[in-house]
Amino acid sequence: MRLKKMKIGILGGGQLGKMLCLAAADWDLEIHILDPDPKCAARNYCTHFTEGSFKDYGTVVDFGRSVDMLTIEIEHVDEDALMALKQEGKIVHPSPESIFLIKDKGIQKILYKENGFPSSPFKYKEGDERLETFVMKNKINFPFVWKASRGGYDGKGVALVKTIEDLKQLPNVACIVEDFVDIEKEIAIIAVRNEKDEVVTYPAVEMLFDQKANLLDLQSCPADISHEIENQAKDLAIKLIRTYNICGLLAVEFFLTKQGTILVNEVAPRPHNSGHHTIEASETSQFQNHLRGILNTPLGSTKTRMPSVLLNLVGEEGYEGNALYVGMENALSIEGVHIHLYGKNTTKPWRKMGHVTTTADTIEDAMEKAMQVKSLLKVVC
Amino acid sequence: MRLKKMKIGILGGGQLGKMLCLAAADWDLEIHILDPDPKCAARNYCTHFTEGSFKDYGTVVDFGRSVDMLTIEIEHVDEDALMALKQEGKIVHPSPESIFLIKDKGIQKILYKENGFPSSPFKYKEGDERLETFVMKNKINFPFVWKASRGGYDGKGVALVKTIEDLKQLPNVACIVEDFVDIEKEIAIIAVRNEKDEVVTYPAVEMLFDQKANLLDLQSCPADISHEIENQAKDLAIKLIRTYNICGLLAVEFFLTKQGTILVNEVAPRPHNSGHHTIEASETSQFQNHLRGILNTPLGSTKTRMPSVLLNLVGEEGYEGNALYVGMENALSIEGVHIHLYGKNTTKPWRKMGHVTTTADTIEDAMEKAMQVKSLLKVVC
Repeated sequence: MRLKKMKIGILGGGQLGKMLCLAAADWDLEIHILDPDPKCAARNYCTHFTEGSFKDYGTVVDFGRSVDMLTIEIEHVDEDALMALKQEGKIVHPSPESIFLIKDKGIQKILYKENGFPSSPFKYKEGDERLETFVMKNKINFPFVWKASRGGYDGKGVALVKTIEDLKQLPNVACIVEDFVDIEKEIAIIAVRNEKDEVVTYPAVEMLFDQKANLLDLQSCPADISHEIENQAKDLAIKLIRTYNICGLLAVEFFLTKQGTILVNEVAPRPHNSGHHTIEASETSQFQNHLRGILNTPLGSTKTRMPSVLLNLVGEEGYEGNALYVGMENALSIEGVHIHLYGKNTTKPWRKMGHVTTTADTIEDAMEKAMQVKSLLKVVC
Repeated sequence: MRLKKMKIGILGGGQLGKMLCLAAADWDLEIHILDPDPKCAARNYCTHFTEGSFKDYGTVVDFGRSVDMLTIEIEHVDEDALMALKQEGKIVHPSPESIFLIKDKGIQKILYKENGFPSSPFKYKEGDERLETFVMKNKINFPFVWKASRGGYDGKGVALVKTIEDLKQLPNVACIVEDFVDIEKEIAIIAVRNEKDEVVTYPAVEMLFDQKANLLDLQSCPADISHEIENQAKDLAIKLIRTYNICGLLAVEFFLTKQGTILVNEVAPRPHNSGHHTIEASETSQFQNHLRGILNTPLGSTKTRMPSVLLNLVGEEGYEGNALYVGMENALSIEGVHIHLYGKNTTKPWRKMGHVTTTADTIEDAMEKAMQVKSLLKVVC
C-alpha cells in the first residue's frame, strides 16, 4: 500500500494536473508537479512545484529522482527519461512503453491493426515524404482524415481533407491518412486498472463536437446507445488497457459507424476531458480512480449517480488577453450547474478555460441546463 | 459580483480552511490563509499563506489590509481587529459583531433568551467568582452542564457535572451552568445567507456522540425525526442567521427533549463538522455555499443526493506522535466510502485527523458501512 509517505511526481501541471492535485488532497498525498509554466493551473494545489520542461530528458530524470513514483497528465513527455527512471527502480504509471506506443498516432494505429482492434483503415506517411506525392502515389480518395503523428492536442493536428486545396494547407510532417468514416456518433469509455490487474470501466459518454473548432463541445452521460454497443466498447477498453499494460486510466474514444460497427479512434493514458463529469456524477471521480490505479489500491466504483452533460468552457472568438468570466452569477442561479475554472491567466479563441457539468434527474434536463449555461457564461477579456 | 480578482482572507488554516480552499479551487478564487502553524492543513491548497496568530489584533489588522475581504474557519479570533478592518471598508463575513455574540457561550445564551429562542435554562458566572460558591449560592442541583464561556472547542470546555468531586476538577473561569436536559437526540441544521438576505437550509443531520470523549462520533443524514420537528428547526436556524445578521454559513445544534420540544444548543458562524457529508451527499457542499454566501452569489441547492453517515476519524487512544493511517486499503474496498485525511502531522488521542462519509441507497446501509470503516481504519503512529 503506497498511500502514505510516497512522493508522487506528475509530468504536467495543466487542468488535469490541477484536478489530480485536488483529488489527492482528500488523502493528504504529497504531489510534486513539473511544468514549464510557473503560473500553471496546478501550481497552487500541489505540494511541490518544479519549473521545467517535461519534454526534456535531463529535466525529467532530475525531477523523477526527487520523487518515489511518477505519472503524467499529458502524453507528450520524454518517455526515454521515464524509461531510465523505471530502470533505476522508480514506479512509473502509465509505463514509458505505453506512452511510446500511444503518443505517436501512427504507432497507435499500427498497434490496433496488429492486435485485432477494429479501427478505420489508414496509411502511414514518414515526415520526409511530401504529403501531396503520398496521397497521389497511394491513390487516396477525398475526403480523408489527416492526423499528425505527434504533438496533436485539443483539435490541433487533425483535419478533414476534402480537396487538393485543403491538402496544401497542411504541414509536411509525419502523419496518418485515415479513411473518412461515416460516423453515426462518437463515444468514449474510461478504463482504470491497478497492478493486481483489476480493471473497471466507466459508463460510455456520448460526444458532440463543434464543427468549426473541431473541439469537443458537449458530452452526455449516459450515452444514447444500446447496451450491446456499450458492452462491446467496454470490452475493447478492457482489452486495450491490458494490451498496453497500463496502470491508472486509459480513455478510449470510439466511432460508431452508420452501419452499426464500432471502431477505436484513439486512446489517452491519463485523465481525460471525457471524464470530467465523474467529479459530480459518479461514485468515484476519474481523478481519484487514476490515483487508486497507480497506487495499487482497490479501484473505486464507477457507478453513475445521475445523468449529466459536460460543456467545455472555451475562450470566445475575438478575445485574446487576461481572462474574464461573464455570466457566472446567472449560471450559478441554475440548480445542478457545477462550474470549474482552470485558472489560466490568458484566454484565446477556443482555448479550454474550464468546464461546466450540469446534473439533473433526466439527460434532457441536464442538456437543457447545459444549453442555458452555454448562452450565459462566456470567457472574454 | 465578487467572484474574480477578489483576495479572500481566511482566519485559520485547519481542516475547515483546507476544505474551503478546495471548494475555492473550482472557481479559481484567490485565497489567503492566516494561521500560526506553517504546517497547517490548508497550507498547500491556498494561494498565499501568512504565518501568524488570528488571535492577535495587530497581526489580524495587517493580514486584513493585504486582502479585499475576510472570513473565518474558527470563531476564536480577534473580532476587534475585524471590526477595525470593517470600518476601513473591508468586507467581513460573518460580521465581527456576530463573532462577538457567538464566541462567548454566555453571550450566546443571553441572546437566545432576549430574542425568544428556546434554549435550556442557565446561569452565567463571571471569571472572578469561585465556581463552588456560585453553585451553592444559586442552589444549582446536580447533575448540571458546565460550559466555559470562551475557548471551548471539540469537546473541550464542556462537562457534565454529577457530584461535588466533578465540580472540583473544573477550572475557575467565566462559564455558564445549564440545566441538564433529558435529551432524546441531538440534531444540527446548517443555514446559508447572502447579502441579498436570501437564505437556504440543509436538511437536518442527527448526531451521535462518543460518551467517553464527548466528541461527535457518527452523524446521519437524513435525521430520524418528523417533518414537523425538522421544519421547526429550520425556521429557528433561519431566524437565527437573520438575528445575527450573518452572511455565509451558520451551523445550529439543537436538543430534542424527551418531551418533544426543541432547544437551541449552540451555533457556529462557519463551516461545521455537521456539514462535511455535504461534499458527497448534497447538490452543493457547505464549503461552496459558504463562499456563495460571502461572495453574494445565488446560493446553491441544499438538496440531498443520497443518504449518508459521517464518521470522525480521531486519533486512537494510546498513540501520540507522527500520524499513521492503518486500514485504508480495506476501507477503500467498500463502495461508497469517501475518506478525507486532513494532513495533520501528529496524532493524539481523540484529535480530529480526518473524516469518512459513507453513502448508500438507504441510511441503514450507510450506517453499516460506517461501522465497518470504524473497525477497519485507525489513526496510530
